Parts: sequence; C-alpha cells; structure tokens
Amino acid sequence: MGRTADYTNERCSIAATLEVVGDPWTLLILRDAFAGVKRFEQWQERLGVARNVLASRLKSLVAHGVMEAQRYSERPPRQEYVLTPKGLDLSPLLLTMAEWGDQHVYGIGKGPVHFVHKTCGCDFHPRLACEACGEVIDRRDLRRVVHETSQTVGEALEAVKIPAE
Amino acid sequence: MGRTADYTNERCSIAATLEVVGDPWTLLILRDAFAGVKRFEQWQERLGVARNVLASRLKSLVAHGVMEAQRYSERPPRQEYVLTPKGLDLSPLLLTMAEWGDQHVYGIGKGPVHFVHKTCGCDFHPRLACEACGEVIDRRDLRRVVHETSQTVGEALEAVKIPAE
Repeated sequence: MGRTADYTNERCSIAATLEVVGDPWTLLILRDAFAGVKRFEQWQERLGVARNVLASRLKSLVAHGVMEAQRYSERPPRQEYVLTPKGLDLSPLLLTMAEWGDQHVYGIGKGPVHFVHKTCGCDFHPRLACEACGEVIDRRDLRRVVHETSQTVGEALEAVKIPAE
Repeated sequence: MGRTADYTNERCSIAATLEVVGDPWTLLILRDAFAGVKRFEQWQERLGVARNVLASRLKSLVAHGVMEAQRYSERPPRQEYVLTPKGLDLSPLLLTMAEWGDQHVYGIGKGPVHFVHKTCGCDFHPRLACEACGEVIDRRDLRRVVHETSQTVGEALEAVKIPAE
C-alpha cells in the first residue's frame, strides 16, 4: 500500500469512485460506518488512525456528500457522521469487496464476518444481477461501450471543495 | 489519495481484499487487464506510471495469484500478464465501482464507458442478488454475523511471498 496515484486526469468511472472513496483509510471508515460507527472517537479507537488524518478523511467524505455531519450536542459542540443516500449506495461495493476477501484470502466460512439473507435464510454470497431484467449475469454477458467524449474525473468533480487538511 | 494504511492487523475481509488489490495503481492495472491489456509497455503508456512501480505491482499480483505471467517470446524473453480465475473474480468489484462512479460522480449516461446486458439488450446497471435464491437484495435484507475468532489479514496471507521491489 501507499504509493499515490492521481485519478483526476483519468476518464473512468472506476477512477472516479477511487478519487472519492479509494483512500485506504476512507474505505475502513466507511466499513465502520455501515457497522454503526458515527463518532470520531469510535473510529479513532477502532482504526488507530492519526486524529488529523481521520478528521481530514471525514471532512472529505462530507464535502463529497457521502457522509453528513449532524450536531448531537450543543454544549460542548459535538457532531456525529452519518451516511447519506449517496454513501449508502456504497453498500454493494463493500459487500462485493468482502466477498472476494472471503473467497480468496480467508476462504469461505473462515472470514471474520458473514451475512445471512433474511428472506431465504441462506448465507449471503453476492452475485451481480441486471437491474433491468433481474437476471444474474456473468461478465461475458456484457458488452462494453466506450464513449468518445467524456469529462475527466477532475472535471466531473470540479464543484467539490475539499477543505484543506 | 496517498496516506498509507496497514491492513495486516485487521480482522476483516474488506481489508483482506484491500491488502491484495487496494493499492491505487493496482486497481487501474486490473481495470486495464479486463479491457484486454496484457503487456508491460501498454500499461506503462496508458497509466503513465513509473516503470519500477508498475513492475512491483505486477509482481505482487502474480505472487497473490491474481495474474499469471506467460512467456510469449523466447528471444528476446518477453512475458505477458493474464488474469487468473481469482483475478477474473474481481470483475463484480470493478463493475460495482464503475456503477457508483457513474451514478454519483459522472451522472448516469455521462460516464466514459457503459455496459449493455447482451441477454436483455438493456444498459447494464448492477444490483446485488443472493447466490442461493437469486433474489435482488437490499442491504437491509442482510443480517451481519460476527465471528469471535478469526485470523488477521496478515495471518491469512502469511504464505504469500511478495518479491522485494
């Protein structure tokens, strides 16, 4: 881990996602948010991340509209961070990541967490389905269409102002 | 981008995936591999990444069994890199990443690439389905089960020897 990559000149939706949430700490912050973490001190304790780094990652997530800061105490002033609908839409990404780690790093059944699909009662393993027809797809069922003109990631994110660290 | 996070002490399948493929360049290398790139010079040209960084990322992907090096010329000795089944299993992750970038950074229809589901003919937007029952799920349909004991990411990956850069 650790080398930097600049995604802003890429014309790519994957790079766009990475530019917003691809920072190594950010994905762990989001993972914990889905597990119910809302407060600075909780993240700090769970991740052991430097306070200035955590503060800057949360600020960036708020600036990008992935999380929202909500004041829960006036005196002393305290806020907590909750996932917005845009942030909640990252749930498939995190579940897909967890599945690959289970399958290929831990081995199925040996991972630290698993999910149960309440509707059918089975252990949940995600497959991708087509939103239009509902069918589970294989990547070979997809045809890739490249658009000749499109913005760079930097252009697409131009309006987002990230506070300085 | 750019701060480092150490995933090896985490007990988490998401962190496990990030430890293997979460490096910023690595995900772009894999993206290009799915688009058909197999040779060092092609990646180097497309990504503008330093040669030593690219070489180390490819070595790491081979060491983790995500890609395989195949000799295609003996004189001069040349090899190309192809995705293994383990690597091909990253396709849902990249498609899910692309979808979020399309939805929330570019805006649907404005992204640089889209996919068509050949079977039904519609533009492809992924949803997660349950492998067992085939039903498209919502994250609220899932119950999270935490296992008390499990390996750290570092322990799970102990056998993998990554060549020095």
